[in-house]
Amino acid sequence: MSEIKIIGFDADDTLWVNELYYKEIEKEFCDLMADYLPPEELSEALFKTEIQNLEWYGYGAKGFLLSLIETAISISKGNVPIASIEKIISTVKILLNREIEILDGVEGLLPQLQKQYHLIIVTKGDLLDQERKLKKSGLMPYFHHIEIMSDKQEADYQKLLKNLGILPEEFLMVGNSLKSDIFPVLAIGGKAVYVPYHTTWQHETIEEVPGFEYQTIEKISDLIHLLPK
Amino acid sequence: MSEIKIIGFDADDTLWVNELYYKEIEKEFCDLMADYLPPEELSEALFKTEIQNLEWYGYGAKGFLLSLIETAISISKGNVPIASIEKIISTVKILLNREIEILDGVEGLLPQLQKQYHLIIVTKGDLLDQERKLKKSGLMPYFHHIEIMSDKQEADYQKLLKNLGILPEEFLMVGNSLKSDIFPVLAIGGKAVYVPYHTTWQHETIEEVPGFEYQTIEKISDLIHLLPK
Repeated sequence: MSEIKIIGFDADDTLWVNELYYKEIEKEFCDLMADYLPPEELSEALFKTEIQNLEWYGYGAKGFLLSLIETAISISKGNVPIASIEKIISTVKILLNREIEILDGVEGLLPQLQKQYHLIIVTKGDLLDQERKLKKSGLMPYFHHIEIMSDKQEADYQKLLKNLGILPEEFLMVGNSLKSDIFPVLAIGGKAVYVPYHTTWQHETIEEVPGFEYQTIEKISDLIHLLPK
Repeated sequence: MSEIKIIGFDADDTLWVNELYYKEIEKEFCDLMADYLPPEELSEALFKTEIQNLEWYGYGAKGFLLSLIETAISISKGNVPIASIEKIISTVKILLNREIEILDGVEGLLPQLQKQYHLIIVTKGDLLDQERKLKKSGLMPYFHHIEIMSDKQEADYQKLLKNLGILPEEFLMVGNSLKSDIFPVLAIGGKAVYVPYHTTWQHETIEEVPGFEYQTIEKISDLIHLLPK
C-alpha cells in the first residue's frame, strides 16, 4: 500500500446509510400494494422493473421513484388508484430530504487520512441527490474531488484515473460493493479494500472472482491499520 | 481571444437539438390533458411544477417526466386515468431513445478547433442521458473532457476551471443560454460566445446584464472567425 496517493471512497453505505432507506420505501410500497400481490412477488416485480429501467434511468433516487410508479401500474394492471401514485411520490420526496446518518468510524478516519492522502468520493446515482447528501453530511472538507459517475465499471475507473493523472497502483478504492467498488478497480491494476455493509441491493451482489486480491475490513476505522504509518 | 486554451461547449441546443423535443412532449401532454385545462394553463402549471421540483430532481429528462406525472395528477385533482400516466411515461422513454440531430455547422467546426484547443463539453441534466446523447452523436472523439454538472452557476464554473487547472481568461464558453453559459462565465473572468437557439426553455431566459461583454454569433460555424488564426 506504500505507493498510494489517492484514496477513493464509495458514498452510499460506505460513508453513510442509504440502502436501508430504500428498503423502508420498498416495505411501504409492498404495504400500499398489498391488495394486488404478496410482498415477495412485489419486491421481485420492482427489482425486475429497476433492472429493465437501468439502461434508461441509470442509478439513483429518481429512477427508483419512476420504477416504483411503473411497477404499481403494471402489477395492478392499471387499476392502482392515483392516490397511491401520489403516496409513492411523496414517500420518495421525504427520502430526498432525509438527514444523513454517517456510518460509525467515518468521522474519525477521514481527518487522519487527509494528512497523508488526497481523498475523493467515487459514487454513482443522481448528480444532484448525491451532491445534496454530501453537502448535508458535513464531510465535504475532507474531499479533494467528487466524482459522480453513471456507472462504476473498469472503463469508468480508467477514465477517472486518467483525469486524476495517477497510475492505477497509486489508487486505492474503499467501498461496500464487490461489483462496483472492488473488482473493477482490481481489474485495472488498482487496489481495493472491501467494507461489507449488512444490507446490499440485490443488483450489487456478485460471485467472488478468483485470482483477485483484496482485503476485507469489518469497520471502516480499520482502514488506518492497512496503510503505512 | 489569444490566451484561450480550453473551449467549453454547452450540449443541448448548442451541439444538438433538444428543447424542441421537450416542447413536442409538452404539446402531447396538453392534448392528453385537454379535458382538464386549456393548453396555456397546462403549460403554466407544468412549468410551475418543474421549477418547484428543480431543488429535488435537478435538470434533465427524469425530473421532467416526474413533473409531467405530478402536474397531471394535480391539475386533474387526482382524476387523471392511469392510462394517461402510462402514456406520459412511454412518451418520455421514446425521447430518451431518440436519434441525435446535430445542429448545422457543428461537424465542420469541431475538427478545425480541435487542432488548436482542448475542447470540452459542459452541460447539466441527467448524467446517463447526457452521456447517451453524446455517444449517439458521434462527437465524442472531438472532446477531451465531459463535465456534466448539476447546475451552471459561477461556483460550478470555478470548480471546473480549478479541476482543469486553467485560469478563467484561458477559458471560452460557447452556448445558447445567457443564464447558464454566458453570464456566470463572464462573472468569474472567463470569455463567452452566445449562439442563440430559436427555442429556449423559459427557465433559461434572463434579462441582459449591463457591463458584461460577450459576442453573439448567428451560426456556430462563425466561431472560427472570432478566434485568432
